[in-house]
Amino acid sequence: MRALQYRTVGSAPELVDIPTPVPGPGEVLLRVTAAGVCHSDQFIMDLPEEQYIYGLPLTLGHEGAGTVESWGAGVTGLQVGDSMLVYGPWGCGRCYTCAQGHENYCEVAAAQGIAPPGLGAPGAMAEFILVDDPRHLVPLGDLDPVASVSLTDAGLTPYHAIKQSLPKLVPGSTAVVIGVGGLGHVGVQILQALSAATIIAIDTSEQKRALALDVGADHVLAPGEEAEAQIRTLTGGKGATAVFDFVGAPVTTGFASRVVAIGGDIAIVGVGVGTVDVGFFSTPWDAQARAPYWGSRAELMEVVELARVGKIHVEYEQFSLSDGPTAYERLRAGTLRGRAVIVPEGATS
Amino acid sequence: MRALQYRTVGSAPELVDIPTPVPGPGEVLLRVTAAGVCHSDQFIMDLPEEQYIYGLPLTLGHEGAGTVESWGAGVTGLQVGDSMLVYGPWGCGRCYTCAQGHENYCEVAAAQGIAPPGLGAPGAMAEFILVDDPRHLVPLGDLDPVASVSLTDAGLTPYHAIKQSLPKLVPGSTAVVIGVGGLGHVGVQILQALSAATIIAIDTSEQKRALALDVGADHVLAPGEEAEAQIRTLTGGKGATAVFDFVGAPVTTGFASRVVAIGGDIAIVGVGVGTVDVGFFSTPWDAQARAPYWGSRAELMEVVELARVGKIHVEYEQFSLSDGPTAYERLRAGTLRGRAVIVPEGATS
Amino acid sequence: MRALQYRTVGSAPELVDIPTPVPGPGEVLLRVTAAGVCHSDQFIMDLPEEQYIYGLPLTLGHEGAGTVESWGAGVTGLQVGDSMLVYGPWGCGRCYTCAQGHENYCEVAAAQGIAPPGLGAPGAMAEFILVDDPRHLVPLGDLDPVASVSLTDAGLTPYHAIKQSLPKLVPGSTAVVIGVGGLGHVGVQILQALSAATIIAIDTSEQKRALALDVGADHVLAPGEEAEAQIRTLTGGKGATAVFDFVGAPVTTGFASRVVAIGGDIAIVGVGVGTVDVGFFSTPWDAQARAPYWGSRAELMEVVELARVGKIHVEYEQFSLSDGPTAYERLRAGTLRGRAVIVPEGATS
Amino acid sequence: MRALQYRTVGSAPELVDIPTPVPGPGEVLLRVTAAGVCHSDQFIMDLPEEQYIYGLPLTLGHEGAGTVESWGAGVTGLQVGDSMLVYGPWGCGRCYTCAQGHENYCEVAAAQGIAPPGLGAPGAMAEFILVDDPRHLVPLGDLDPVASVSLTDAGLTPYHAIKQSLPKLVPGSTAVVIGVGGLGHVGVQILQALSAATIIAIDTSEQKRALALDVGADHVLAPGEEAEAQIRTLTGGKGATAVFDFVGAPVTTGFASRVVAIGGDIAIVGVGVGTVDVGFFSTPWDAQARAPYWGSRAELMEVVELARVGKIHVEYEQFSLSDGPTAYERLRAGTLRGRAVIVPEGATS
Repeated sequence: MRALQYRTVGSAPELVDIPTPVPGPGEVLLRVTAAGVCHSDQFIMDLPEEQYIYGLPLTLGHEGAGTVESWGAGVTGLQVGDSMLVYGPWGCGRCYTCAQGHENYCEVAAAQGIAPPGLGAPGAMAEFILVDDPRHLVPLGDLDPVASVSLTDAGLTPYHAIKQSLPKLVPGSTAVVIGVGGLGHVGVQILQALSAATIIAIDTSEQKRALALDVGADHVLAPGEEAEAQIRTLTGGKGATAVFDFVGAPVTTGFASRVVAIGGDIAIVGVGVGTVDVGFFSTPWDAQARAPYWGSRAELMEVVELARVGKIHVEYEQFSLSDGPTAYERLRAGTLRGRAVIVPEGATS
Repeated sequence: MRALQYRTVGSAPELVDIPTPVPGPGEVLLRVTAAGVCHSDQFIMDLPEEQYIYGLPLTLGHEGAGTVESWGAGVTGLQVGDSMLVYGPWGCGRCYTCAQGHENYCEVAAAQGIAPPGLGAPGAMAEFILVDDPRHLVPLGDLDPVASVSLTDAGLTPYHAIKQSLPKLVPGSTAVVIGVGGLGHVGVQILQALSAATIIAIDTSEQKRALALDVGADHVLAPGEEAEAQIRTLTGGKGATAVFDFVGAPVTTGFASRVVAIGGDIAIVGVGVGTVDVGFFSTPWDAQARAPYWGSRAELMEVVELARVGKIHVEYEQFSLSDGPTAYERLRAGTLRGRAVIVPEGATS
Repeated sequence: MRALQYRTVGSAPELVDIPTPVPGPGEVLLRVTAAGVCHSDQFIMDLPEEQYIYGLPLTLGHEGAGTVESWGAGVTGLQVGDSMLVYGPWGCGRCYTCAQGHENYCEVAAAQGIAPPGLGAPGAMAEFILVDDPRHLVPLGDLDPVASVSLTDAGLTPYHAIKQSLPKLVPGSTAVVIGVGGLGHVGVQILQALSAATIIAIDTSEQKRALALDVGADHVLAPGEEAEAQIRTLTGGKGATAVFDFVGAPVTTGFASRVVAIGGDIAIVGVGVGTVDVGFFSTPWDAQARAPYWGSRAELMEVVELARVGKIHVEYEQFSLSDGPTAYERLRAGTLRGRAVIVPEGATS
Repeated sequence: MRALQYRTVGSAPELVDIPTPVPGPGEVLLRVTAAGVCHSDQFIMDLPEEQYIYGLPLTLGHEGAGTVESWGAGVTGLQVGDSMLVYGPWGCGRCYTCAQGHENYCEVAAAQGIAPPGLGAPGAMAEFILVDDPRHLVPLGDLDPVASVSLTDAGLTPYHAIKQSLPKLVPGSTAVVIGVGGLGHVGVQILQALSAATIIAIDTSEQKRALALDVGADHVLAPGEEAEAQIRTLTGGKGATAVFDFVGAPVTTGFASRVVAIGGDIAIVGVGVGTVDVGFFSTPWDAQARAPYWGSRAELMEVVELARVGKIHVEYEQFSLSDGPTAYERLRAGTLRGRAVIVPEGATS
């Protein structure tokens, strides 16, 4: 089968022919219908050799969708052709954390060599993808896999971050979204669907601020000191009940620290080197900061339900598998509108 | 001042002239801008003498709004003319339950003779109302008091019931609202504003089912066995994640018991003699039933914020204080559309 | 291998020789070290033929412990000889409810024919037991399997019921335990370990009331009207913050309804025909009732940790597999002290 | 009356004679039975003039207890002689945050000039103290006020910090307490009373490590790199579920950042300049940090209940009001064992 692989540290991903995998006991083979391109792919391909830990060659694609093709011994309950999303942050399924359904925080995955598809295990940028366990499949029903594949990360990651803050996002509260990119524009929609909070979106790009308004933001601001003052004004001096930082750079985490309210939440979602320095003289009393990671299987099911009722969608541009390298060039160039989604030639979505 | 009072058990309320109260230490006098008529007024006026415990004469009106007129010694921070809602379920303010803000469940109110205005203390159906403590005032700002007064009960009561179930009302869940009257039609709006749950409203009246659709219900059903089957179908066999019974009659609580899902919630909100008989052979595993009462002060503030951003409103018809007796006749006749709101002649809303 | 089976409706369980099972793909075979005898075994063996749904012959034992003997294709991470508890309420592992770790409330188990060992699948009262998935094993380490096997039900079931009420069981609160039998005496210990609530235990038997005091109850009462009055006195008139009814008969659920506080919790844990009739004129405002079932896998791990640090233990009497029928006779006669635990001849605990 | 006042920036507190206050409307006068000496008194007296914001002269003492002496107009429900604790973090009582009972995070206290006794308002180190509202009194019953007065801060502050983490402190979890001083030694007791977590206490002082063991710590460690490794070992590599830093210096907050588990909590309780720098490359996934402040009124009631059942106590040394300056000298010298408690001459405890 054809696959898009990262083969040499520092080189661009390459389209190659590799054997189609055969599912072993407990495994499921999907015929890929769509695979999403993510900034974190770029992030790991930019790592120097001594920091790169994902194995080579690496079939890319941690956002995946496909139809059930076959399965190994011991698997039951599937039909050939079932349309599925692949839940990405695979865990062991047995530890205390996994027993609660939080596979994204599995205690032993790293030690046991369990890695997400596209981030260690072979990913979805191929004609077929092997899924280690049927529990990692979330039924898609008649939703379009191309439009839906990025729910697995661009949908799930902001959802997980936001869900923890929902009890605080009561009517009269304020949510600030920093960065209206692939994740942030879904974050705005999730906040709009699940709370009555006033939503303030911040982005340097006027186009992205316009997108934020389109998808439900109440106010948009360009970053900077004036934005801090405006947030104080819009909140009657209180500051933001929750800040979701989809950039994660020092300039944005610093901004978050200064606009959060007493008892408010800061979630650093964008993978950057920014930190929120929590302390009596740097953040308001009882303001909480955390850096959550991806999301749980149950949360992905909830995200799919949000899409099913039309309350969220992911903006995307479609590419063929052959054009996969182009998609990554466009990602690097910053010329993509929303997500890039790879669809293997011949895939029936 | 003029006041609408219940003076003789079994008689209709009467318009009378009584002395305008003078605020003592810690008290606040409001010039009434609006007062809401509620089924529970009717309920207590229908009680036989031996069960009637609210004192006579009783100035009616537990939904009240007004502007600050004057205050007693020790009160600070108010301006004459401030537009306020009156929080109704007064508690002692000091017990463990009140210390958490749950005055509606005050441990000692009954023992200490503390009663809500209109349900023991003099109510809002008068030109002035005395409020025992400034903490029982919620600033209304520039919201219309006539349109807003019923937020204090018809808004707050469903809000309190629904808020406890919000953690379960995730995307993909289902909320059933039984009874689309004064409280139920606000309940539908609250569910729509604060969750992505599928909302199914049940009412015997076609007109009220139409209202439910107008204010955000996804499906409406007439009650009966067929409705039970339809809820099963709409939920993929699971049943309802939460049922809010705004009627509370045996026929509706029985219905609620049969349509609730494993682990689901039933809130009996309508004051009737219906019960949910919780047990292994009568309700699904871990389904929870409760009969909540009114709501907290913080919740009323949240309700006002929901109204301020236009996400909820209360349907109502307006009456003058002189026409108060007519409003109660219309209530009894069942010919009101939404709430009846009394506005004293000369009140500037 | 030898197994204790229920073979004919209405007859006593019989010791038989059956083939030792062979683990298929994904399955694990345990050499049984201990199996617990439970009232629910008696309950299902007392069912008339038309209500009996567990299949015949049925190898009994839904409380099981064993050492890993072998496994089928696709299973990894086990060592022969690992000492394990068997988590009993097996679910599908894939549905939304299972994805959150609540397999005990699996949405599809019944429809898919998935049943707990000893309650449909072959149970632990045999020399070997087949476990359908390694996730259903909880490592026991060096804890004694004979002393620990009943943690899987007599420990887990009260733990699950109590855990939901812990946020209400603050210092100054009161927990009432009705029935100090196999589950109740563990419930008292769990409450003592995890809260500062005052614990009141109720039992008809003086001996069991003495046991309750031994394991941490602050007060013990014989049931009856006087007990209701005493609970009022002990709680300063408020009533009980939470009531755990390990009997579940009409007399105990009625008692629970009368002693619970405003906003309190009632959990019906004992499987009986009793109900708590929740409503405005039958239970206090916002008091909640539910009938929870067994517990989650993560909760079983927590229960094992409680036992590991010595904060809970299960009282038991030990029987050989050959004496299994005797254990059931003693259970029926009510002469057991605590749980009966079956240990196959030759098992190394 | 006599009072211990801070009168000149940079000078020691002085014993002076001032007029006994007279309660105005809504106020209550207490005859002081005990007042606690706290490090934060020292902290504010060490501030340079330009940073000192508490007013002069300042009667010290934010931990106070007393008996009701008299009250102003509008106060009801008190008896002369009632023994009370003074809840310290006074709020407005009306804002959204206060409406939920979180007066310690009042939104408007600073703007309205509302300050705690001893930290702006006249404190408890005098023969009498004026309390602004009866809701700020918590009945002490027959508990000894001298032994109990420090529950108002040394008890309440750790309680508030710990309570937020209790849902994570399940059996099998680990709590780390940094600093076993006035607050930390109560923190250990609270953890022991309300959870089954393994408690690890860290202190530089061997004597304080011994105290930690006495009051319920499972392990004690001297700070340093070895301690980090030991925490990893004791937690099976996971790290600490919650870390309570009662020091708050850079060295301790850094330590907390390194030993916390994925998804764990860090509470900075000690007022220092240390920060926890939350971010993807500095703290584990989803670990949360916050700097909570004091506690709520309901929480103080819970703390009093914990003391009433003997599950917590505060170590202290007793001083007369005349010896108040000596108590502060001893505090500065670090020679106190536990808290210093001031008892006015002639006070009947």
